[in-house]
Amino acid sequence: MSKAFEVATEIPVRYAETDKMGIVYHANYLIYCEVARTHYLEALGFPYSEMEEAGYLSPVLDVNLKYGLPCTFGDTVKVITSVTKLTPVRTEYSYKIFLKGDDPETAKPRVTGSSTHCLVTADTFKAVNQKKVFPKLYEAYQNALGDGE
Amino acid sequence: MSKAFEVATEIPVRYAETDKMGIVYHANYLIYCEVARTHYLEALGFPYSEMEEAGYLSPVLDVNLKYGLPCTFGDTVKVITSVTKLTPVRTEYSYKIFLKGDDPETAKPRVTGSSTHCLVTADTFKAVNQKKVFPKLYEAYQNALGDGE
Amino acid sequence: MSKAFEVATEIPVRYAETDKMGIVYHANYLIYCEVARTHYLEALGFPYSEMEEAGYLSPVLDVNLKYGLPCTFGDTVKVITSVTKLTPVRTEYSYKIFLKGDDPETAKPRVTGSSTHCLVTADTFKAVNQKKVFPKLYEAYQNALGDGE
Amino acid sequence: MSKAFEVATEIPVRYAETDKMGIVYHANYLIYCEVARTHYLEALGFPYSEMEEAGYLSPVLDVNLKYGLPCTFGDTVKVITSVTKLTPVRTEYSYKIFLKGDDPETAKPRVTGSSTHCLVTADTFKAVNQKKVFPKLYEAYQNALGDGE
Repeated sequence: MSKAFEVATEIPVRYAETDKMGIVYHANYLIYCEVARTHYLEALGFPYSEMEEAGYLSPVLDVNLKYGLPCTFGDTVKVITSVTKLTPVRTEYSYKIFLKGDDPETAKPRVTGSSTHCLVTADTFKAVNQKKVFPKLYEAYQNALGDGE
Repeated sequence: MSKAFEVATEIPVRYAETDKMGIVYHANYLIYCEVARTHYLEALGFPYSEMEEAGYLSPVLDVNLKYGLPCTFGDTVKVITSVTKLTPVRTEYSYKIFLKGDDPETAKPRVTGSSTHCLVTADTFKAVNQKKVFPKLYEAYQNALGDGE
Repeated sequence: MSKAFEVATEIPVRYAETDKMGIVYHANYLIYCEVARTHYLEALGFPYSEMEEAGYLSPVLDVNLKYGLPCTFGDTVKVITSVTKLTPVRTEYSYKIFLKGDDPETAKPRVTGSSTHCLVTADTFKAVNQKKVFPKLYEAYQNALGDGE
Repeated sequence: MSKAFEVATEIPVRYAETDKMGIVYHANYLIYCEVARTHYLEALGFPYSEMEEAGYLSPVLDVNLKYGLPCTFGDTVKVITSVTKLTPVRTEYSYKIFLKGDDPETAKPRVTGSSTHCLVTADTFKAVNQKKVFPKLYEAYQNALGDGE
């Protein structure tokens, strides 16, 4: 029995990311998720910038977010990222967004969500099999998944 | 039998909204949805800016988007917006995003999605009953819903 | 004696463009200027998307903005754009941003600014002579300049 | 003879901040400058979030940026920030943006710029004298200025 690999990414809220409600504008949490996903891939040893240099892109197929208590300027958010589903052609990432200082074991996340991604060639935007194109990344994803704990 | 009320909103893609994949950055579709929702409320006769001036805010509770073919600079997107669920405390909006010029009856949307919203007081962020606070808006929503066509 | 060619572009302020001061976030005026510049090039008959399709990009060399009274959600801004300097390798655009409804002859602009652009090849980012590459655009720019009125 | 106080702020470029030219979208450097300015105020011991909690805002009066070589995803920028002009009602910040790893003594900045700010009350947006309202911050600014080296 193994727990899924998780990466924690701290991101100070920028003034630019707030709106006139006085809180982080809802779409900006997708950017926090992307920053966290970038960090996750680095932690796994496969920087996204290198995947792009190799001629591949990883477009987003779907996203969903649920919003709880708001965050605002002066806060630092902490995004806990894991890979929660994996097939040769799709990867699902899940996110739990806390305030820095919150205990992820006991606190309720401010925002939760997930996103699904495929892999395409940069020149034709054709979907490819990530298990074949990046076998070591695929193996790392598999180990990161845990066994459903 | 009545069809749900739909509003079509055309939005030219801005250069600023693209990313280095050469296409609209995925989070920006949430902004298109918000522009379309603002337009929908105007079409219904209840501009959101007036709701805010009356002391209320309408935060987002959840969002989800599914992405198909990309859009890019030079394109004008057309967002078809409708209200698809309604309770005294929640409103769900649904969006189908086409390219301008696409026939919504036959074309496949580039992006589809939905978002759920509540109503809170601007000073305390406490949820209120929109049926009581804005009874005419609530009635307009009910008429806009159609009967499940 | 001729007056410079001016294009007026109306842009409704988006909620996403505000910040927690309750007004349009200052960097977003650069986006309004870009939307206006895109509109200006269309009005001149040379859409920027076609320049890109022809293999050229027009990066920004400098920008400056001066801010007066703020704009916010519910407002529609009106950007008055003109070309104010021109050489074979550089074009300077100037912007006066009003509220829709303001009389540009008597009202004080909310924001004024300018930006300078060159033309480069998309593949190498090397600067090129726009007078040679797009002679008709250059001629249109010259006619648009007026004679310094 | 004293050198102006400088703060270095490292900011990894986000994918969201690029555009279809493949580089950081020009307006986003204003956001980097703001993140750096926030960091500068923290380094001086006067976090901007506390100034807002005290009932004041610091709007932007003007900005200007000059762009050299571009930055892109995969890069980390390093913003060197200093205060370069000071009066009781205005503060000018200057910025030099390098790539992390560049030697600021020998490398040419990718982007340079400045911004001017005043201080207003949050409720009325009336300009106030920062020397009177925040005398310790004003003194810290004066010490940070250096003597024109």
